Amino acid sequence: MLAVPVKAFTEVLPQILPHISKKAIVTDTGSVKSPLLNMMCSPEYDGILFVGGHPIAGSEHFGPGAAQDNLFSGKRCILTPVVNTDDDAVQIVRKFWELLGAEVSEMDADSHDQMFASVSHLPHLLAYACIQAIASNESQNALGLSGAGLKDFSRIASSSPQMWADIFLENQEKLLPRVSAFNEVLSGLEETIKSNDKEKLIELLALSKSARDRWMT
Amino acid sequence: MLAVPVKAFTEVLPQILPHISKKAIVTDTGSVKSPLLNMMCSPEYDGILFVGGHPIAGSEHFGPGAAQDNLFSGKRCILTPVVNTDDDAVQIVRKFWELLGAEVSEMDADSHDQMFASVSHLPHLLAYACIQAIASNESQNALGLSGAGLKDFSRIASSSPQMWADIFLENQEKLLPRVSAFNEVLSGLEETIKSNDKEKLIELLALSKSARDRWMT
Repeated sequence: MLAVPVKAFTEVLPQILPHISKKAIVTDTGSVKSPLLNMMCSPEYDGILFVGGHPIAGSEHFGPGAAQDNLFSGKRCILTPVVNTDDDAVQIVRKFWELLGAEVSEMDADSHDQMFASVSHLPHLLAYACIQAIASNESQNALGLSGAGLKDFSRIASSSPQMWADIFLENQEKLLPRVSAFNEVLSGLEETIKSNDKEKLIELLALSKSARDRWMT
Repeated sequence: MLAVPVKAFTEVLPQILPHISKKAIVTDTGSVKSPLLNMMCSPEYDGILFVGGHPIAGSEHFGPGAAQDNLFSGKRCILTPVVNTDDDAVQIVRKFWELLGAEVSEMDADSHDQMFASVSHLPHLLAYACIQAIASNESQNALGLSGAGLKDFSRIASSSPQMWADIFLENQEKLLPRVSAFNEVLSGLEETIKSNDKEKLIELLALSKSARDRWMT
């Protein structure tokens, strides 16, 4: 079970490779799936049973002090097998997560990375950027006066910088286009505000609200 | 007590003006303070006791169904009196909020609007923009697979579009420069990712993390 920041896979795997039996199953908990999968497809890892995994659990806290015995209970876990992945290995990894209470689903690594660039990596980057923008402009007092909105919005900006730097770098090919798409949307909202077009602004905000309400009630 | 979307003040005030006794205190709950204060300083409102107020409470839910009897308990409320505001009126409004359990502080309206452009209006705009960017690219399935990170990050995008369109428009003079500052920070992060500068990326993310951890533990 590889549970290290995603860019560390390239360092850790060659070190453990000599010690892995050909019957062992290698899996992981990384937030970016394609690079590790590609590495495992190279000839030197031939014969090793590999099943990519990504439990959607955890918080901004990390390290042994943040351990929770029911961390995965009721959470999703995504496995990213490929066509020639050993099916028994997939079932064993699935069972492992199910025993911890997770709901397991499968998708291909590329779709996973595309989707999580949108729904996870982009919001994390925005939260970090927003806090940096506020911190460089406001006194500490200002944040103290802010409400629950900013607190929840920016919770993920307290996540591990090492872990997230790796995720942003490893998935940049899929993340950067999502940042550009976000920039276009934000720019559209700015223009609508500048032109004092209240009707259009309400319409745009209502689209976001209804999208979120549909997904997250 | 004016408790309407902030751009509605200009419609509501002239309607209630003939019915306001010269002994009455007018206050409000708006998230933008300067425009109403400026309006109250015009000659037709001369003699009316006005104290601007902004309780930092509430959630993305609104309307009678979202009522909570302890909504203001332990929350902050900011009053924005000016030099010639009647001191008794300020004390009465202060007492009102304190009786509801709020911690009351005072600041000038301009500083308030500047500060909240950063710590509240900017994050709300970003949350709306992020959800719009995701919704226009991803299937509904994608959001269903996302974790608690996006859920908390985007909670404020479920806020009232009418209320927030008004806030963005009324405070645009202070909000738009904060959006530009944010754009610069985000652009810096994008460049750092593109150049694969892991050390610098970790440093930037760590700055955000420590700023947030300092403010919000």
